[in-house]
Amino acid sequence: MIRRLINKIETLQAPIVVGLDPMLSYVPEQIQKQAFEEYGETLEGAAEAIWQFNKKIVDAVYDLIPAVKPQIAMYEQFGIEGMKAFQKTVDYCKSKDLIVIGDVKRGDIGSTSEAYAVGHLGTVQVGSKSYTGFNEDFATVNPYLGSDGIKPFLKVCKECDKGIFVLVKTSNPSSGEFQDQLINGTPLYELVGRKVAEWGEECMDGAYSNVGCVVGATYPEMGKVLRTLMPKTYILVPGYGAQGGKAEDLVHYFNADGLGAIVNSSRGIIAAYKQEQYQHFGSENFADASRQAVLDMKEDINSAIARR
Amino acid sequence: MIRRLINKIETLQAPIVVGLDPMLSYVPEQIQKQAFEEYGETLEGAAEAIWQFNKKIVDAVYDLIPAVKPQIAMYEQFGIEGMKAFQKTVDYCKSKDLIVIGDVKRGDIGSTSEAYAVGHLGTVQVGSKSYTGFNEDFATVNPYLGSDGIKPFLKVCKECDKGIFVLVKTSNPSSGEFQDQLINGTPLYELVGRKVAEWGEECMDGAYSNVGCVVGATYPEMGKVLRTLMPKTYILVPGYGAQGGKAEDLVHYFNADGLGAIVNSSRGIIAAYKQEQYQHFGSENFADASRQAVLDMKEDINSAIARR
Repeated sequence: MIRRLINKIETLQAPIVVGLDPMLSYVPEQIQKQAFEEYGETLEGAAEAIWQFNKKIVDAVYDLIPAVKPQIAMYEQFGIEGMKAFQKTVDYCKSKDLIVIGDVKRGDIGSTSEAYAVGHLGTVQVGSKSYTGFNEDFATVNPYLGSDGIKPFLKVCKECDKGIFVLVKTSNPSSGEFQDQLINGTPLYELVGRKVAEWGEECMDGAYSNVGCVVGATYPEMGKVLRTLMPKTYILVPGYGAQGGKAEDLVHYFNADGLGAIVNSSRGIIAAYKQEQYQHFGSENFADASRQAVLDMKEDINSAIARR
Repeated sequence: MIRRLINKIETLQAPIVVGLDPMLSYVPEQIQKQAFEEYGETLEGAAEAIWQFNKKIVDAVYDLIPAVKPQIAMYEQFGIEGMKAFQKTVDYCKSKDLIVIGDVKRGDIGSTSEAYAVGHLGTVQVGSKSYTGFNEDFATVNPYLGSDGIKPFLKVCKECDKGIFVLVKTSNPSSGEFQDQLINGTPLYELVGRKVAEWGEECMDGAYSNVGCVVGATYPEMGKVLRTLMPKTYILVPGYGAQGGKAEDLVHYFNADGLGAIVNSSRGIIAAYKQEQYQHFGSENFADASRQAVLDMKEDINSAIARR
């Protein structure tokens, strides 16, 4: 799967992913209104609003980007109806040939992680038949429980040609509270990073592994160290744009081959029309604003890589 | 909410929780058959089978126990249909006056954790109306992202009188890989435990906090230390029974007041009819076997506490 992602990144010259994290407050008035007229101010109405919002953004940007990253929490908050909107979004993106990174941050003890792995990436057995559940291409995974929680994902990655991104150093301000703690002089995130590289060895897919990691754009010095420690690991980089990460900071997340990282932007793209820079599009043309924001992000990152 | 849980534990003399983690392989043939006849060997059929299985177990044990702990992964693996079975299970257990601990192990950066907190414990705003999503009473939460990921849960706990159990030391064999790493001589799980106690201070509900923690039954020496470190923190203890934790090992998870811990058993209760000890019930009476297993577990734990 990582090979497929790399092919798309190279073809499109776009090491970027759009985070489909639709807060209801990002959805333009007219889309909310239409959804509420049809379904009322209900969970179903909210789910319809975020789904229509997603669909229009995907239609506007799918030819520019290799992948999307829907954040499942933004759907899960609306209960079952929200989960249906998540499923529709995954399916629609796949129909547009986008690679889908399910930002689910699951992780549990062995038998339970197996259920998550199967439900998000693999197939589940029902009597004599087998089915896919949410069927993303990649999932993000939390490492706190150690190898037991990761191995069921590795199994599914190998069997179904899927991938995972394991949290190593997250982009949020308090990520250091535990992740930066020193163990014999080595920070925990580095220890986790070394483990990720080790898990990745058994899931190679070309020059890179189907086991990637997450390192926030907001910690560029740590990204630089981790890049060297785990040369065959793809880094999914959240935190660009709205969270404060800058393109110059991100160049060290890439290997000398120009590969090795994919940078996510969520709010910065999907709510672009709310930013001063793109306000002239107007809320009725929010998807065009998103398209322009994707083009600008691509240019910003590619030129930073070219300058290094 | 912890006060409500404690009241129920004291009334029933049962510091135990039944884990509703229905693997399809636990569901007796006749229930599977009936569900598949109605819905085919489909995800809907699988969801119906686990829901009917749960319902019969809940009917057989609800008067003996204060709480249930559905493991969402076991439902999520069947996609949307599975999530509906999760929702039905939560609602049904609440209608039987059981406290529901959603074993969801969510956790993310701030804005995302907020969506999880709202979706599982709180209420979500849709236009001028507000709705509950999955509406559990407690949720389990992963601490790897630090305070940012926890605080939105604290907010919802305070606003809606709900609770959380934060993973401190998990029951699985590889939990030590990261959790046991020493930071200036102190293991990471202890550092997390101290943070949990600190978070808990702002969510007190009587003598205990609405912020509890998870410490596996399989690490009794660590449980003993953590008990002393966090006297006002309720400990949710997985790993009893099928995973190898014994009642004698668990007495140190309780405070001198006889409170402070609630022990979970999943497989040991819901698949009791498959064990030699309860085989005489027969698979048609699987729920009676579960009831007997609950009675035996209650006796086992209470007598160990009495003996100490």
